[in-house]
Parts: sequence; C-alpha cells; structure tokens
Amino acid sequence: MSDHGFSRVVCLSGGVGGARLLHGLARALPDDALTVVVNTGDDFRHWGLHISPDLDTVMYTLSGLGHEARGWGLAEESFGALEMVKRYGGDDWFALGDRDLGTHLVRTEALARGVPLHAVTARLFRGLGVRTRVLPMTDDPCRTMIDTESDGTLPFQEWFVKKRTAPVVKRVWFDGSQTPAPGVIEAIDAADVIVIGPSNPYVSVDPILAMDGVREAMERRRVVALSPIVGGRAVKGPLAEMIRALRGEEASAGAIVRHYEGLLAGIFVEQGDEASVEGTACAVRGGRTVMTDRADSLRLAREVLDFAASLG
Amino acid sequence: MSDHGFSRVVCLSGGVGGARLLHGLARALPDDALTVVVNTGDDFRHWGLHISPDLDTVMYTLSGLGHEARGWGLAEESFGALEMVKRYGGDDWFALGDRDLGTHLVRTEALARGVPLHAVTARLFRGLGVRTRVLPMTDDPCRTMIDTESDGTLPFQEWFVKKRTAPVVKRVWFDGSQTPAPGVIEAIDAADVIVIGPSNPYVSVDPILAMDGVREAMERRRVVALSPIVGGRAVKGPLAEMIRALRGEEASAGAIVRHYEGLLAGIFVEQGDEASVEGTACAVRGGRTVMTDRADSLRLAREVLDFAASLG
Repeated sequence: MSDHGFSRVVCLSGGVGGARLLHGLARALPDDALTVVVNTGDDFRHWGLHISPDLDTVMYTLSGLGHEARGWGLAEESFGALEMVKRYGGDDWFALGDRDLGTHLVRTEALARGVPLHAVTARLFRGLGVRTRVLPMTDDPCRTMIDTESDGTLPFQEWFVKKRTAPVVKRVWFDGSQTPAPGVIEAIDAADVIVIGPSNPYVSVDPILAMDGVREAMERRRVVALSPIVGGRAVKGPLAEMIRALRGEEASAGAIVRHYEGLLAGIFVEQGDEASVEGTACAVRGGRTVMTDRADSLRLAREVLDFAASLG
Repeated sequence: MSDHGFSRVVCLSGGVGGARLLHGLARALPDDALTVVVNTGDDFRHWGLHISPDLDTVMYTLSGLGHEARGWGLAEESFGALEMVKRYGGDDWFALGDRDLGTHLVRTEALARGVPLHAVTARLFRGLGVRTRVLPMTDDPCRTMIDTESDGTLPFQEWFVKKRTAPVVKRVWFDGSQTPAPGVIEAIDAADVIVIGPSNPYVSVDPILAMDGVREAMERRRVVALSPIVGGRAVKGPLAEMIRALRGEEASAGAIVRHYEGLLAGIFVEQGDEASVEGTACAVRGGRTVMTDRADSLRLAREVLDFAASLG
C-alpha cells in the first residue's frame, strides 16, 4: 500500500513526458504497485535494428542513465557508429548513439530468435536495474501512421524525425496487430487507478487504447490524466498543432478531456488551466505540471495520486 | 605498368599480415593493377550482425584508419555498445567497437536486402576512400571449421577468439559454398603474378584455394608467397602449432612450400630461413619480412615484386 491507499496503479506512457512522470510514480509507490504500459506504435527499423523509442526513453529515465535535460537517450553517449555509417553513405536522419546501439542490438537479436517483445523488455529493464514492471502495449508490429496534407501517408518516425512534424496531419491510424501484450488487460483489470501520462493523446496514448479490450477495460476503472497542454501550448512536440488540425479547436486541457470521450474521471492541469475543462463531466485539479528535474517528478506524481484518491 | 613490369597483380589475403603487405602493394602498384581476394571463412554472426573480420582488417589497413600497432580494428575506437550489451547479459567474448559497428550494421542491412557481399564490400571500401579492388573469396556463406582434440568441432572464431586457439587442431575444413565471387577467377586468369600474403595457409589461404576453380586457375599462373614463418615461429597466431599438429613437422618456410604442394614458383623468406626450402622445386629469396610500420610494408612489397619479376 502506498500513502495514497493505492496498491495497484497502471500508467499509460509515451516517451519523454510520460517517462518523467513515471520516474516520480516509481519513487512514490512500492516497486510492486506500479505497472507501466508503453506505446510501441513509434517502433521502427533503422540500420536493420528494431528501435522502440518510447520503451527506451522510459527505461533510460527509470534507470537514471538517461539524459535528464533532454529527456531521451543516454546521458553519456558517443556517436562513432553513426560517423562511420555516414562515411558509407548510410541513412543518418535518425541519430543512434553507440551505447544506445547496445540496447537495439540485444533487442533485435532476441526478437530474431523468437523471444517476444515483452520478455526482451523485461530482460533489458532488469539489466539496467529497473524494478518497475514495464509492458509494451503489444508484442506484435503495430505502426502509427500519419496521413498528411502535403506528403501523403508517413510512418510516425518519418513524420516526426525526418520531416520534423512539418506536414499538417489529416488523420492518425494504426497499422498492424491489435493484440495487447500478455499482462496488459490483467493489469488494467486489477488497477485501483489508471494514470494517463502527459503524453500526446493521438500518437502516444491512442495506440495503446486501440489494442483489443484496453479501452473497454479502462472504462471499468478510475482513470485520471495529467494534461500535456499548458496554457494552450504543448509542453513538448506537435500536440497543439495536431489538436487544431484534427479537432478544429485550440489546444487546451479541455480539448484533451473531450478527446478521451468520457474516459477520464479527472484531469490534473497546470494552475490557471482549470476553466478549460468546465462543461465536461471530468473533475479537475490544478498544480505545477512542468517537470524539469526529478524532484518535480516526485512531487507531481504524489499530487496526481492524491487527486486520484480524492475521486474515490 | 609498375616498375616491376607487372600490370596485373592478384594478392590472396587473410587478416593482419596480409593486410600489412597489401598496404605496401597498394602503394607500389598503380590503383588499377592490384586485385585482392580476401578470405571470408572467418565470417560469422555476432549480436545478429554479419562480421567479416579479414575484409575489415584489409579495409581499415588500406584506408589508413586501422590501428597500426595492433594490426586490426580502428585506431580511434570506443566500446560504449559493448558496455551496454554486458549490462544486459549479452555475449561479450568478441569485442566489437562502436565505430566498427557502423561497418557491420551497413553490411548486415545491405545483405539482408539481398545485395551480394562483393557489392557491399565495394561500397564499404569506396566509402573509406580505398581505390584498390578488393573481392571476398565468395558471396556465399562458407565457414572454416576446426576439428579439435579436446573440444570437438568449433567454428573458426570460437576456436580462435573464444578458446584462444588452445584446443589442438586435428583437421580444418570448410562448410558451405565453394562458388567464388564474381571476378575472382577472371582476376586470377588475367594476373601476371599472384602473391600469397604472409597469412596462415590453413585458415586464411586454403579457404580461398578451396573455391571452385581457384587452385586450378592459379596453377596456370606464376605464384609467389611471402612466408608467414620466421625462424621457426609464426609472426602472429597459432600457425607453428598447427604445422606441428597437422604436418608432423616443425614450422619452417619449407613446410609452407610443401603445404602448397607445387603451387609456388617462389617464396620470399626471412634472411637465414632460406635453407629450409632446399629440396623443393620452389625458388627462394631472403630479406627482412617482419612489417612493423608502413615503410616496412612498402619496402617489402617492392622486394616481393622484384623477386617475382626475377622468376619470369
């Protein structure tokens, strides 16, 4: 049992923002109280390797090896392999660091031997000393695809990294398996509360919700979200532009609540953003939501858990 | 045309010793006069990547990026990926450097797309600015296998690196394709002279000779070798022990000549080793054969070419 009365918490997470909240949740809760379900819709192959950007961001953050200011990648990193790949005329639009390559090599080799992604993930997290239980949303390929105004349909990473999110989004969809990884539905069914991290709903959370049975299982639980919108702007990334393009409204915490269509019992927003949630059935609490260091993460995680407990 | 009257020279090469001679040959001859055929019997998969140790040693040496004193690998190298692989409990008996990984990643990804090894090899060498024509002995898998007294049959790298050549060799054989890569037979047929580098005959040169038609084509040409045995000892590696175990005689330049069974028109040996060749039909010339720097390589390459020219 944590201080908040929760013994089973599930958090849905994308990359940087979600990982920062997780760092706090992992310290605010006992090791066995937290299960994380991570988006793998951004997974892709590069240099022949299977890259799982969100799983790695969560792993590096939880292990304390991550680059804290940047929020992704490893703190101490070199780029010797990339330098050689460039000499050979290889793809260099996605910069993989040398230490990071160790992760991708072990994962890719294990997947090639038939080890499922959730088992490889457990091994990698264990290797870095992380005791939190972390599950990929699915063991199978499921790619987030972006239909754009100007560039047709792009796989997520090409739109996000190669095109720097410049092409305006018309639609987001998911190409592949909808079978959740073993343990995902069971963890949701057993959860006292489900926290949706401050991740992009369209490309980080919706891929998880699209897995068979996940949304239905969540509708039976208490779900709270941490708003990724602060004062009408996204803390990071192209979310504000996506809300404008896809919902035809300005970005706000209220737009996030409406996006989830009744799923949320409560949303924790930046102080001053509470009014945007008015008119919905969702409870709201305000606080300081931008996390710049680990102390922020822990404080905010406790406040979100307190808020969730107050909804009981 | 070179100073020696040769406009077409083929050199058969393994790793370190062969690569050092090649560095001299490449400077002693015009760019278009030299074709190198490299052993790929040592190729293996590690961390899911296709590793071609001898091709890489030749490439790094010819490009000037190699570690000159050690003779293999890159001069400036880091081991960040290896450090992470160790944390995950992955295989660490073969140390792949970070910059070196760039080579293996590009090669493996191209092979997976169906690009043949000789084409990938040409692309890699071109990327590092090497103008010498370098061919793998074959495009197809062909593994050098070592039958040992104590440890059964081992693939070459397991015997060489993992077991540090300790298990006594009973037999060396080749498992896989015997189809030479495109251009190999044509280069031999067109050669004025063929130079066998100071490589281990059993595990570096015999795999090339085992390719269909290679030995027969060589028997029609003038072939000279640079002895890898100096004063009864191998310059590098387990060759002396292998000669003892496999031929039942002490290591000598003469044993090398007898091993090649009439293939050699001449052998260039260390000063003082000439007598061991007596009683064979092979011409001999002595000189200083140990290469410790690039000046040695160029001097020796010129002396070997002079010697070969004298046999016309």
